[in-house]
Amino acid sequence: MVKTVAIIGAGISGLGAIKACLEEGLEPTCFERSDDIGGLWRFTDEVEEGRASIYKSLVTNSSKEIMCHSDFPMPEDFPNFLPNHKYVEYIRLYANYFKLVKYIKLKTSVCRVEKHTDFPVNGQWLVTTESNGVKKTDIFDAVMVCTGQHAKPAMHLENLPGIDMFKGKVLHCREYKRPIGFDGKQVLIIGMGNTGVDIATELCTKASQVYLSCKTGVWVFQRLGKGGLPFDLGFLRRSFDWINNIMPPAVSRWMLKKYMNDQFNHDLYNIQPEGTVWREPLVNEELPSRIMSGSIMIKQRVKKFTETSVHFEDGSVVENLDIVILATGYEYSFPFLDESIIKKDESKGSFYKKIIPLGIEKPTLAFIAFILPIGPTMVVAELQSRWATRLFKGLHKLPDPEGMRKEMLRDEERRKKWFATSENNFRRTNYISYMDDLATDIGVRVNIWKLFLTDPVLAWKVVFGPCNSYQFRLTGPGKWDGAREAIMTQWDRIEKPLSTRVVKKKTKANLLSFIPWILCVGILLFAICLKG
Amino acid sequence: MVKTVAIIGAGISGLGAIKACLEEGLEPTCFERSDDIGGLWRFTDEVEEGRASIYKSLVTNSSKEIMCHSDFPMPEDFPNFLPNHKYVEYIRLYANYFKLVKYIKLKTSVCRVEKHTDFPVNGQWLVTTESNGVKKTDIFDAVMVCTGQHAKPAMHLENLPGIDMFKGKVLHCREYKRPIGFDGKQVLIIGMGNTGVDIATELCTKASQVYLSCKTGVWVFQRLGKGGLPFDLGFLRRSFDWINNIMPPAVSRWMLKKYMNDQFNHDLYNIQPEGTVWREPLVNEELPSRIMSGSIMIKQRVKKFTETSVHFEDGSVVENLDIVILATGYEYSFPFLDESIIKKDESKGSFYKKIIPLGIEKPTLAFIAFILPIGPTMVVAELQSRWATRLFKGLHKLPDPEGMRKEMLRDEERRKKWFATSENNFRRTNYISYMDDLATDIGVRVNIWKLFLTDPVLAWKVVFGPCNSYQFRLTGPGKWDGAREAIMTQWDRIEKPLSTRVVKKKTKANLLSFIPWILCVGILLFAICLKG
Repeated sequence: MVKTVAIIGAGISGLGAIKACLEEGLEPTCFERSDDIGGLWRFTDEVEEGRASIYKSLVTNSSKEIMCHSDFPMPEDFPNFLPNHKYVEYIRLYANYFKLVKYIKLKTSVCRVEKHTDFPVNGQWLVTTESNGVKKTDIFDAVMVCTGQHAKPAMHLENLPGIDMFKGKVLHCREYKRPIGFDGKQVLIIGMGNTGVDIATELCTKASQVYLSCKTGVWVFQRLGKGGLPFDLGFLRRSFDWINNIMPPAVSRWMLKKYMNDQFNHDLYNIQPEGTVWREPLVNEELPSRIMSGSIMIKQRVKKFTETSVHFEDGSVVENLDIVILATGYEYSFPFLDESIIKKDESKGSFYKKIIPLGIEKPTLAFIAFILPIGPTMVVAELQSRWATRLFKGLHKLPDPEGMRKEMLRDEERRKKWFATSENNFRRTNYISYMDDLATDIGVRVNIWKLFLTDPVLAWKVVFGPCNSYQFRLTGPGKWDGAREAIMTQWDRIEKPLSTRVVKKKTKANLLSFIPWILCVGILLFAICLKG
Repeated sequence: MVKTVAIIGAGISGLGAIKACLEEGLEPTCFERSDDIGGLWRFTDEVEEGRASIYKSLVTNSSKEIMCHSDFPMPEDFPNFLPNHKYVEYIRLYANYFKLVKYIKLKTSVCRVEKHTDFPVNGQWLVTTESNGVKKTDIFDAVMVCTGQHAKPAMHLENLPGIDMFKGKVLHCREYKRPIGFDGKQVLIIGMGNTGVDIATELCTKASQVYLSCKTGVWVFQRLGKGGLPFDLGFLRRSFDWINNIMPPAVSRWMLKKYMNDQFNHDLYNIQPEGTVWREPLVNEELPSRIMSGSIMIKQRVKKFTETSVHFEDGSVVENLDIVILATGYEYSFPFLDESIIKKDESKGSFYKKIIPLGIEKPTLAFIAFILPIGPTMVVAELQSRWATRLFKGLHKLPDPEGMRKEMLRDEERRKKWFATSENNFRRTNYISYMDDLATDIGVRVNIWKLFLTDPVLAWKVVFGPCNSYQFRLTGPGKWDGAREAIMTQWDRIEKPLSTRVVKKKTKANLLSFIPWILCVGILLFAICLKG
């Protein structure tokens, strides 16, 4: 019977893991190598070894009502998209409110996580940590890995012939902090993910020219959808998801393509992904207008570097290049784990439900947030922790190995329908379906048909409104009494931060706004009269 | 008979004026107080007395095919929206191509422009200039004032009680150059015009908080319209203008409001202009998302300042304010002219066709580009110069004073229908109608009905395509043989700068894109069968 749980990392996932342990009566101990909580989101001007590193201007890609934890809505005056410091403020509020900090050992690195000699029987782990130069090994009944996906940079230098000869500056985006030192420089950014494009748009008014090397094209979402509301409030809805699942994938892909090309024609901008499969989408508002003003120039894949220039695959060359920024992403890194437990190359999909490593004798090791959902990872991570802690306690069971393998094959088939098969794409998954799947296992998935009978207003909001995490606190273990209220009042919290300028609003509809309708009716009546 | 013309200022309007003089066989002399051409658009890190001053990141609000001069399309690889240095490059290309530079006297200020004693007879002017400390007076047959609208800052300190007590930094936007020195500061920007909002969006990732004080609300256009094409390519079309003029103003206002609120709901963001009249619109892409992330906070009008804080009219207060930027616009300044010729307060509309001061005995003084069209000023300025030089030569005449006054009253009525009556709003005007009006006077307005008979493809493009300046070189005096070709090839020049990444495009329509249509037809057939 699991009692003690070691949690590695005190970012937003680690904190959710502590809370999930407490909810199930487990005893969590969280090890954090840095001197503070917040993980990825806590900005520092220095890059810290082993911790994710962000730039000063980073803003969340999801909006607050979509990304907040399931029993802790964000304060109503918080903005809808959060600058990193504001999100860290939320993380601290969360940690303090649920009194999570006392379970965290700061400045404590995890050096080694090994199976106990009796692991096949007791599923226990020997966790060796180091703090202030002192090493220590403790036994834990279970381990939750919450170290995040952004700690170890992936350089892929083998794809950049001649980069070692290049005499300018080369840095990984992990080292990029502020737009200082780029004035008048020619900058090449390799990689068109969120980070590469964020940096490009930030630098393009300072650098003399920013070039953005694009491998396979990319779909660009903008944070604001119709009417200027956060796009995810419209996009992440159960009703939308249902329609999406019912339609043939080709049709829904076509519709989504149309939506994005209406914003700006990816083909005209020469960044439309090749083939018909989805590539990782990115979120950025500024890119199109910066391309349109020539401040950012989209280029092909790099062919080679010389001492001062870069040659692209289409034969074009940029001379007098000053700086290269590798926005080439990150790779998994579990230096504390043996390769027999988790292989570095996880593209083969060796996690059950993307949480439990396949083939392990006892499911007492959980990987939290090693996933790329089309939605906020933190919300998924919280539910994964709830799923894992209940699994530790034996409150739900894994299928037999053959059952697991079959389920995973099915999921993989589904995934391939939707997403491309790039290297780390195993992590890419649908958002709502995946969470419903976990929620079903632990009995917290709301029965919508029943809800329509007992509380139709709420049911309507659950189905046709934004799919936020409160929905997984309406029922079952871990039910939160405030969940219904949180769903009912979500639009107040969305609108509140926009009301910083108090103006008198018209309470009655503007009469003028009816003129077009009156005109239409008039024309119709006229037409009928004519016909008569 | 006018022969010699003094032109004051060698910005884009001044250069257009030189060229217009040369076309009519006049002898221009252009006086430029700074040491280079380019006017407003030439960025320097220092603010120069008497010259407009811009910030490093300024980008044009109009796209290149809409804003270029009528007989000089921009190079095809130029971006669609031009950073200031790129626009200056165009200005230099223009000046060199038409050999305009030799008519310019650099580092020469105009101190005084006075009527010749025989002015009522000969319409001549005494122009006193200063160069290297040497003053000189020359006689000119006519004067064209091309000094621009952005040289003298309007501070309106009387509206900011307590600003003299405020201990932080106060600067006019004219002094703002780069986002340096604002890190971690609390910044208040007063004024929500293009400049105020550009500065706000540039500073908001550096400052700890940017507050934007908004007097009456504002409509925000985004540079990119549907499909990511420059919005003005869709908006400035004769067909659109016709529909607009036919519809009751209330209906067209409603439609335009709807268009802009679809992008983002101005009411939800609390910046919707009060009343039903149009306020000056601004062009910015970033504002909504920066408000959404809380980096920019919209505030009411300022009530008062204290030593360290600002109080707003709605009672809210911001403490520990560090910097105030007055983006309160500019005012007219003609220090070289007597108040009897042109009053400082021109809101009463004392210019005929917004060019010739009313009540002057001889129309030999023209004000070029003192106008705020809903379209690029430089294009209007060029046509104004052509109109003025032909007026100087007597090739068209002014109506009698009563006729002028009546025409102006009619224009003012039209204007009030569309625009608000803010201080400098007399300058605000429709774009296409105003230019057609000038073009008619000088015989360069194309007869569209005739064109449909003789060259229907061109006519189609003139009416249903973007309304660019080439249209005023198709016929009449100053006809340019390249005008037709320029109109026919405009889309090539629009697309060219986007092709910096060479990709193979599909030549055939993707079969998958037909699936929705096939489905629709299928459903329809099914329904018909069912009914049958």
